[in-house]
Amino acid sequence: MGGTFDRLVACLAKLPGVGRRSAERMASRLVLDKAGLLKDLLSVLAEVDRDLCGCSRCGNLTTVDRDPCRLCTDPKREGDVVCVVEEPGDIALIHRSGGFHGRYHALMGKVSAMKGRGPGDLRVRQLVERVRNEGFKEVVLALSTDVEGDATAGFIVELLKGSNVKVTRLAAGLPASSAVLYSDPVTLERALKGRQQA
Amino acid sequence: MGGTFDRLVACLAKLPGVGRRSAERMASRLVLDKAGLLKDLLSVLAEVDRDLCGCSRCGNLTTVDRDPCRLCTDPKREGDVVCVVEEPGDIALIHRSGGFHGRYHALMGKVSAMKGRGPGDLRVRQLVERVRNEGFKEVVLALSTDVEGDATAGFIVELLKGSNVKVTRLAAGLPASSAVLYSDPVTLERALKGRQQA
Repeated sequence: MGGTFDRLVACLAKLPGVGRRSAERMASRLVLDKAGLLKDLLSVLAEVDRDLCGCSRCGNLTTVDRDPCRLCTDPKREGDVVCVVEEPGDIALIHRSGGFHGRYHALMGKVSAMKGRGPGDLRVRQLVERVRNEGFKEVVLALSTDVEGDATAGFIVELLKGSNVKVTRLAAGLPASSAVLYSDPVTLERALKGRQQA
Repeated sequence: MGGTFDRLVACLAKLPGVGRRSAERMASRLVLDKAGLLKDLLSVLAEVDRDLCGCSRCGNLTTVDRDPCRLCTDPKREGDVVCVVEEPGDIALIHRSGGFHGRYHALMGKVSAMKGRGPGDLRVRQLVERVRNEGFKEVVLALSTDVEGDATAGFIVELLKGSNVKVTRLAAGLPASSAVLYSDPVTLERALKGRQQA
Protein backbone atom coordinates (compact mmCIF):
# COMPACT_ATOMS: atom_id res chain seq x y z
CA MET A 1 0.00 0.00 0.00
CA GLY A 2 3.07 2.24 0.46
CA GLY A 3 3.21 3.60 -3.08
CA THR A 4 -0.36 4.78 -3.43
CA PHE A 5 -0.52 6.23 0.07
CA ASP A 6 2.81 8.02 -0.32
CA ARG A 7 1.68 9.49 -3.65
CA LEU A 8 -1.48 10.82 -1.99
CA VAL A 9 0.59 12.38 0.82
CA ALA A 10 2.99 13.96 -1.71
CA CYS A 11 0.08 15.36 -3.69
CA LEU A 12 -1.68 16.85 -0.64
CA ALA A 13 1.61 18.32 0.61
CA LYS A 14 1.76 20.42 -2.58
CA LEU A 15 -1.37 22.32 -1.55
CA PRO A 16 -0.67 25.74 -0.04
CA GLY A 17 -0.16 25.70 3.72
CA VAL A 18 -0.04 21.90 3.98
CA GLY A 19 3.09 20.35 5.51
CA ARG A 20 4.14 16.71 5.43
CA ARG A 21 2.61 15.86 8.83
CA SER A 22 -0.77 17.42 7.99
CA ALA A 23 -0.75 15.74 4.59
CA GLU A 24 -0.30 12.36 6.31
CA ARG A 25 -3.20 13.03 8.66
CA MET A 26 -5.39 14.16 5.77
CA ALA A 27 -4.45 11.09 3.71
CA SER A 28 -5.23 8.70 6.59
CA ARG A 29 -8.61 10.31 7.08
CA LEU A 30 -9.39 9.97 3.38
CA VAL A 31 -8.49 6.26 3.31
CA LEU A 32 -10.43 5.55 6.50
CA ASP A 33 -13.52 7.45 5.34
CA LYS A 34 -13.72 6.05 1.83
CA ALA A 35 -17.50 5.91 1.69
CA GLY A 36 -17.84 9.51 2.90
CA LEU A 37 -15.12 12.09 2.51
CA LEU A 38 -13.11 10.32 -0.22
CA LYS A 39 -16.19 9.77 -2.40
CA ASP A 40 -17.33 13.38 -1.87
CA LEU A 41 -13.92 14.83 -2.68
CA LEU A 42 -13.56 12.69 -5.81
CA SER A 43 -16.94 13.78 -7.10
CA VAL A 44 -16.52 17.49 -6.40
CA LEU A 45 -13.00 17.51 -7.90
CA ALA A 46 -14.36 15.93 -11.08
CA GLU A 47 -17.00 18.66 -11.19
CA VAL A 48 -14.36 21.37 -10.66
CA ASP A 49 -12.29 19.81 -13.44
CA ARG A 50 -15.27 19.94 -15.78
CA ASP A 51 -16.69 23.38 -14.91
CA LEU A 52 -14.12 25.74 -13.40
CA CYS A 53 -10.89 27.34 -14.57
CA GLY A 54 -8.70 30.40 -14.12
CA CYS A 55 -9.68 33.41 -16.26
CA SER A 56 -7.17 33.49 -19.10
CA ARG A 57 -7.07 37.27 -18.86
CA CYS A 58 -7.00 38.28 -15.16
CA GLY A 59 -6.30 34.92 -13.48
CA ASN A 60 -9.40 35.02 -11.27
CA LEU A 61 -11.53 31.91 -10.81
CA THR A 62 -14.32 31.56 -13.35
CA THR A 63 -16.35 28.95 -15.21
CA VAL A 64 -15.12 27.41 -18.46
CA ASP A 65 -18.13 28.88 -20.28
CA ARG A 66 -17.32 32.40 -19.07
CA ASP A 67 -13.68 33.05 -19.96
CA PRO A 68 -12.73 35.94 -19.85
CA CYS A 69 -14.60 36.32 -16.56
CA ARG A 70 -17.42 38.66 -15.58
CA LEU A 71 -15.04 41.30 -14.12
CA CYS A 72 -12.97 41.38 -17.32
CA THR A 73 -15.96 41.84 -19.60
CA ASP A 74 -18.38 43.98 -17.55
CA PRO A 75 -18.81 47.15 -19.67
CA LYS A 76 -19.80 49.14 -16.56
CA ARG A 77 -16.30 48.74 -15.05
CA GLU A 78 -13.60 51.31 -15.87
CA GLY A 79 -11.45 49.96 -18.69
CA ASP A 80 -8.48 52.29 -18.30
CA VAL A 81 -7.21 51.17 -14.88
CA VAL A 82 -6.02 47.75 -13.69
CA CYS A 83 -5.40 46.59 -10.11
CA VAL A 84 -2.53 44.10 -9.75
CA VAL A 85 -2.82 41.59 -6.88
CA GLU A 86 -0.78 38.60 -5.73
CA GLU A 87 -3.49 35.96 -5.37
CA PRO A 88 -6.87 35.58 -7.09
CA GLY A 89 -8.43 35.57 -3.61
CA ASP A 90 -7.30 39.19 -3.16
CA ILE A 91 -9.59 40.24 -6.00
CA ALA A 92 -12.73 39.44 -4.00
CA LEU A 93 -11.41 41.38 -0.98
CA ILE A 94 -10.67 44.51 -3.02
CA HIS A 95 -13.93 44.12 -4.91
CA ARG A 96 -15.92 44.01 -1.66
CA SER A 97 -14.15 47.13 -0.32
CA GLY A 98 -15.96 49.15 -3.00
CA GLY A 99 -12.85 51.30 -3.53
CA PHE A 100 -11.98 50.10 -7.02
CA HIS A 101 -14.02 49.93 -10.21
CA GLY A 102 -11.55 48.90 -12.92
CA ARG A 103 -10.03 45.63 -14.15
CA TYR A 104 -7.92 43.14 -12.19
CA HIS A 105 -4.77 41.13 -12.76
CA ALA A 106 -3.53 38.34 -10.45
CA LEU A 107 0.21 37.62 -10.50
CA MET A 108 -0.15 34.22 -8.75
CA GLY A 109 2.37 35.08 -6.05
CA LYS A 110 5.22 37.46 -5.44
CA VAL A 111 8.94 37.18 -6.08
CA SER A 112 10.65 35.28 -3.27
CA ALA A 113 14.35 34.64 -2.85
CA MET A 114 13.56 31.99 -0.23
CA LYS A 115 11.25 30.03 -2.51
CA GLY A 116 13.43 30.71 -5.56
CA ARG A 117 10.56 32.45 -7.35
CA GLY A 118 11.49 35.21 -9.78
CA PRO A 119 9.33 37.51 -11.94
CA GLY A 120 9.40 34.83 -14.68
CA ASP A 121 7.33 32.54 -12.42
CA LEU A 122 4.59 35.17 -12.08
CA ARG A 123 2.02 36.45 -14.58
CA VAL A 124 4.14 39.56 -15.24
CA ARG A 125 4.59 39.11 -18.99
CA GLN A 126 0.81 38.83 -19.34
CA LEU A 127 0.44 42.10 -17.42
CA VAL A 128 2.82 43.91 -19.76
CA GLU A 129 0.88 42.54 -22.75
CA ARG A 130 -2.43 43.66 -21.28
CA VAL A 131 -1.08 47.16 -20.64
CA ARG A 132 -0.14 47.28 -24.31
CA ASN A 133 -3.33 45.73 -25.67
CA GLU A 134 -5.99 47.17 -23.39
CA GLY A 135 -4.54 50.68 -23.19
CA PHE A 136 -4.59 51.07 -19.40
CA LYS A 137 -3.73 54.57 -18.18
CA GLU A 138 -2.98 53.44 -14.62
CA VAL A 139 -1.64 50.27 -12.98
CA VAL A 140 -2.49 50.09 -9.25
CA LEU A 141 -0.16 47.70 -7.39
CA ALA A 142 -2.11 46.18 -4.48
CA LEU A 143 0.81 44.08 -3.19
CA SER A 144 2.07 43.04 0.24
CA THR A 145 3.93 45.70 2.20
CA ASP A 146 6.83 43.33 2.94
CA VAL A 147 10.23 42.89 1.31
CA GLU A 148 8.88 40.45 -1.27
CA GLY A 149 5.93 42.68 -2.16
CA ASP A 150 8.29 45.65 -2.50
CA ALA A 151 10.63 43.67 -4.76
CA THR A 152 7.72 42.54 -6.93
CA ALA A 153 6.53 46.15 -7.22
CA GLY A 154 10.07 47.22 -8.16
CA PHE A 155 10.23 44.69 -11.00
CA ILE A 156 6.90 45.78 -12.41
CA VAL A 157 7.76 49.50 -12.23
CA GLU A 158 10.99 48.74 -14.10
CA LEU A 159 9.22 46.66 -16.78
CA LEU A 160 6.54 49.26 -17.41
CA LYS A 161 8.99 52.14 -17.75
CA GLY A 162 8.49 53.64 -21.20
CA SER A 163 4.96 52.20 -21.55
CA ASN A 164 3.48 55.63 -20.84
CA VAL A 165 1.35 54.22 -17.99
CA LYS A 166 1.10 55.59 -14.44
CA VAL A 167 2.06 52.97 -11.83
CA THR A 168 0.74 53.53 -8.29
CA ARG A 169 0.80 51.55 -5.00
CA LEU A 170 -1.81 51.37 -2.24
CA ALA A 171 -1.32 53.96 0.49
CA ALA A 172 0.74 52.86 3.50
CA GLY A 173 -0.40 53.90 6.95
CA LEU A 174 -2.39 52.95 10.04
CA PRO A 175 -5.12 50.35 9.46
CA ALA A 176 -8.72 51.23 10.36
CA SER A 177 -9.81 50.81 14.02
CA SER A 178 -6.19 50.83 15.12
CA ALA A 179 -4.02 53.22 17.15
CA VAL A 180 -0.45 54.44 17.42
CA LEU A 181 -0.19 52.23 20.50
CA TYR A 182 -0.64 49.07 18.39
CA SER A 183 1.53 50.12 15.44
CA ASP A 184 5.03 48.92 14.67
CA PRO A 185 7.81 51.47 13.89
CA VAL A 186 7.78 50.80 10.12
CA THR A 187 4.04 51.42 9.87
CA LEU A 188 4.41 54.61 11.88
CA GLU A 189 7.30 55.81 9.76
CA ARG A 190 5.29 55.23 6.58
CA ALA A 191 2.16 56.82 8.04
CA LEU A 192 4.18 59.91 8.96
CA LYS A 193 5.83 60.09 5.56
CA GLY A 194 2.43 59.95 3.85
CA ARG A 195 0.64 62.33 6.23
CA GLN A 196 -2.17 64.38 4.72
CA GLN A 197 -3.78 67.72 5.62
CA ALA A 198 -6.67 67.09 8.02
CA MET B 1 -19.27 28.89 -10.28
CA GLY B 2 -20.22 29.54 -6.62
CA GLY B 3 -21.85 26.17 -5.97
CA THR B 4 -19.07 23.89 -7.16
CA PHE B 5 -16.29 25.95 -5.61
CA ASP B 6 -18.12 26.22 -2.28
CA ARG B 7 -18.69 22.47 -2.24
CA LEU B 8 -14.97 21.89 -2.81
CA VAL B 9 -14.12 24.28 0.06
CA ALA B 10 -16.64 22.56 2.35
CA CYS B 11 -15.19 19.16 1.48
CA LEU B 12 -11.56 20.20 2.08
CA ALA B 13 -12.52 21.90 5.36
CA LYS B 14 -13.64 18.49 6.68
CA LEU B 15 -10.07 17.18 6.51
CA PRO B 16 -8.26 17.16 9.87
CA GLY B 17 -6.44 20.40 10.67
CA VAL B 18 -7.93 22.32 7.73
CA GLY B 19 -9.85 25.52 8.54
CA ARG B 20 -12.12 27.51 6.22
CA ARG B 21 -9.41 29.97 5.14
CA SER B 22 -6.89 27.21 4.29
CA ALA B 23 -9.60 25.26 2.48
CA GLU B 24 -10.28 28.30 0.28
CA ARG B 25 -6.59 28.70 -0.56
CA MET B 26 -6.30 24.99 -1.34
CA ALA B 27 -9.42 25.09 -3.53
CA SER B 28 -8.16 28.11 -5.50
CA ARG B 29 -4.86 26.41 -6.13
CA LEU B 30 -6.63 23.27 -7.37
CA VAL B 31 -8.80 25.22 -9.82
CA LEU B 32 -5.89 27.29 -11.08
CA ASP B 33 -3.63 24.25 -11.52
CA LYS B 34 -6.13 22.00 -13.26
CA ALA B 35 -3.65 20.38 -15.60
CA GLY B 36 -1.21 19.63 -12.77
CA LEU B 37 -2.28 19.31 -9.15
CA LEU B 38 -6.00 18.74 -9.76
CA LYS B 39 -5.38 15.97 -12.32
CA ASP B 40 -2.79 14.33 -10.03
CA LEU B 41 -5.06 14.45 -6.99
CA LEU B 42 -8.01 13.07 -8.94
CA SER B 43 -5.97 10.16 -10.22
CA VAL B 44 -4.33 9.26 -6.91
CA LEU B 45 -7.65 9.50 -5.04
CA ALA B 46 -9.22 7.11 -7.54
CA GLU B 47 -6.31 4.74 -6.93
CA VAL B 48 -6.73 5.04 -3.16
CA ASP B 49 -10.44 4.37 -3.55
CA ARG B 50 -9.71 1.24 -5.54
CA ASP B 51 -6.77 -0.17 -3.53
CA LEU B 52 -6.68 1.05 0.08
CA CYS B 53 -8.94 0.70 3.11
CA GLY B 54 -8.91 0.60 6.88
CA CYS B 55 -8.21 -2.84 8.40
CA SER B 56 -11.57 -4.15 9.56
CA ARG B 57 -9.91 -5.62 12.64
CA CYS B 58 -7.38 -3.08 14.01
CA GLY B 59 -8.30 0.05 12.01
CA ASN B 60 -4.80 0.50 10.55
CA LEU B 61 -4.36 1.42 6.88
CA THR B 62 -4.08 -1.59 4.59
CA THR B 63 -4.86 -2.73 1.05
CA VAL B 64 -8.26 -4.14 0.11
CA ASP B 65 -6.61 -7.47 -0.79
CA ARG B 66 -4.96 -7.73 2.65
CA ASP B 67 -7.75 -7.28 5.20
CA PRO B 68 -7.14 -8.07 8.07
CA CYS B 69 -3.76 -6.38 7.72
CA ARG B 70 -0.24 -7.78 8.01
CA LEU B 71 0.08 -6.86 11.72
CA CYS B 72 -3.20 -8.59 12.58
CA THR B 73 -2.27 -11.82 10.80
CA ASP B 74 1.49 -12.13 11.33
CA PRO B 75 1.88 -15.42 13.26
CA LYS B 76 5.21 -14.25 14.69
CA ARG B 77 3.54 -11.45 16.69
CA GLU B 78 2.25 -12.18 20.21
CA GLY B 79 -1.43 -12.97 20.01
CA ASP B 80 -2.30 -12.54 23.67
CA VAL B 81 -1.67 -8.81 24.07
CA VAL B 82 -3.23 -5.82 22.26
CA CYS B 83 -2.05 -2.21 22.26
CA VAL B 84 -4.88 0.35 22.07
CA VAL B 85 -4.06 3.65 20.35
CA GLU B 86 -6.06 6.73 19.38
CA GLU B 87 -5.08 7.15 15.74
CA PRO B 88 -3.89 4.60 13.14
CA GLY B 89 -0.77 6.76 12.72
CA ASP B 90 0.21 5.94 16.32
CA ILE B 91 0.61 2.27 15.35
CA ALA B 92 3.62 2.99 13.14
CA LEU B 93 5.28 5.05 15.90
CA ILE B 94 4.88 2.31 18.52
CA HIS B 95 5.88 -0.33 15.98
CA ARG B 96 9.11 1.50 15.17
CA SER B 97 9.97 1.88 18.89
CA GLY B 98 10.50 -1.88 18.98
CA GLY B 99 8.94 -2.05 22.46
CA PHE B 100 5.80 -3.94 21.53
CA HIS B 101 5.28 -7.24 19.71
CA GLY B 102 1.56 -7.92 19.96
CA ARG B 103 -1.61 -6.83 18.13
CA TYR B 104 -2.95 -3.30 17.72
CA HIS B 105 -6.33 -1.59 17.94
CA ALA B 106 -7.00 2.01 16.84
CA LEU B 107 -9.94 3.77 18.50
CA MET B 108 -10.09 6.56 15.87
CA GLY B 109 -9.89 9.33 18.45
CA LYS B 110 -10.53 9.86 22.13
CA VAL B 111 -13.60 10.96 24.06
CA SER B 112 -13.92 14.73 24.03
CA ALA B 113 -16.52 16.83 25.81
CA MET B 114 -15.57 19.80 23.64
CA LYS B 115 -16.13 17.96 20.37
CA GLY B 116 -19.15 16.08 21.77
CA ARG B 117 -17.46 12.73 21.14
CA GLY B 118 -18.37 9.91 23.49
CA PRO B 119 -17.17 6.28 23.68
CA GLY B 120 -19.93 5.35 21.21
CA ASP B 121 -18.14 7.37 18.49
CA LEU B 122 -14.94 5.36 18.98
CA ARG B 123 -14.08 1.75 18.08
CA VAL B 124 -14.62 0.68 21.69
CA ARG B 125 -17.33 -1.92 21.08
CA GLN B 126 -15.02 -3.59 18.52
CA LEU B 127 -12.27 -3.68 21.16
CA VAL B 128 -14.53 -5.44 23.67
CA GLU B 129 -15.50 -7.96 20.97
CA ARG B 130 -11.86 -8.59 20.09
CA VAL B 131 -10.96 -9.14 23.74
CA ARG B 132 -13.70 -11.76 23.87
CA ASN B 133 -12.94 -13.41 20.51
CA GLU B 134 -9.16 -13.29 20.40
CA GLY B 135 -8.60 -14.15 24.06
CA PHE B 136 -6.17 -11.33 24.89
CA LYS B 137 -4.60 -11.61 28.35
CA GLU B 138 -3.51 -7.95 28.42
CA VAL B 139 -4.80 -4.68 26.97
CA VAL B 140 -2.11 -1.95 26.88
CA LEU B 141 -3.63 1.52 26.69
CA ALA B 142 -1.21 3.77 24.75
CA LEU B 143 -3.37 6.90 25.04
CA SER B 144 -2.68 10.61 25.48
CA THR B 145 -1.71 11.70 28.98
CA ASP B 146 -4.28 14.52 28.98
CA VAL B 147 -7.79 14.77 30.43
CA GLU B 148 -9.37 13.29 27.32
CA GLY B 149 -6.92 10.38 27.16
CA ASP B 150 -7.51 9.70 30.86
CA ALA B 151 -11.29 9.76 30.37
CA THR B 152 -11.00 7.36 27.42
CA ALA B 153 -8.84 5.01 29.50
CA GLY B 154 -11.39 5.19 32.33
CA PHE B 155 -14.24 4.15 30.01
CA ILE B 156 -12.29 1.19 28.65
CA VAL B 157 -11.22 -0.01 32.12
CA GLU B 158 -14.87 0.13 33.18
CA LEU B 159 -16.08 -1.77 30.09
CA LEU B 160 -13.49 -4.52 30.43
CA LYS B 161 -14.20 -5.12 34.12
CA GLY B 162 -15.24 -8.72 34.47
CA SER B 163 -13.59 -9.77 31.19
CA ASN B 164 -10.72 -11.35 33.07
CA VAL B 165 -8.15 -9.29 31.15
CA LYS B 166 -5.34 -7.19 32.60
CA VAL B 167 -5.57 -3.53 31.49
CA THR B 168 -2.35 -1.47 31.68
CA ARG B 169 -1.29 2.05 30.64
CA LEU B 170 2.05 3.28 29.34
CA ALA B 171 4.40 4.48 32.08
CA ALA B 172 4.26 8.18 32.90
CA GLY B 173 7.50 10.00 33.58
CA LEU B 174 10.30 12.08 32.13
CA PRO B 175 10.78 11.76 28.36
CA ALA B 176 14.16 10.66 26.99
CA SER B 177 16.90 13.31 26.60
CA SER B 178 15.05 15.60 28.98
CA ALA B 179 15.73 16.91 32.48
CA VAL B 180 13.93 17.95 35.65
CA LEU B 181 14.62 21.54 34.58
CA TYR B 182 12.40 21.17 31.51
CA SER B 183 9.60 19.20 33.16
CA ASP B 184 6.21 20.52 34.19
CA PRO B 185 4.88 19.82 37.72
CA VAL B 186 2.39 17.14 36.58
CA THR B 187 5.10 15.19 34.76
CA LEU B 188 7.37 15.42 37.81
CA GLU B 189 4.60 14.35 40.15
CA ARG B 190 3.89 11.29 37.97
CA ALA B 191 7.58 10.47 37.57
CA LEU B 192 8.02 10.56 41.36
CA LYS B 193 4.94 8.42 41.95
CA GLY B 194 6.23 5.82 39.51
CA ARG B 195 9.86 5.87 40.67
CA GLN B 196 11.77 2.60 40.35
CA GLN B 197 14.78 1.10 42.09
CA ALA B 198 17.94 2.22 40.25
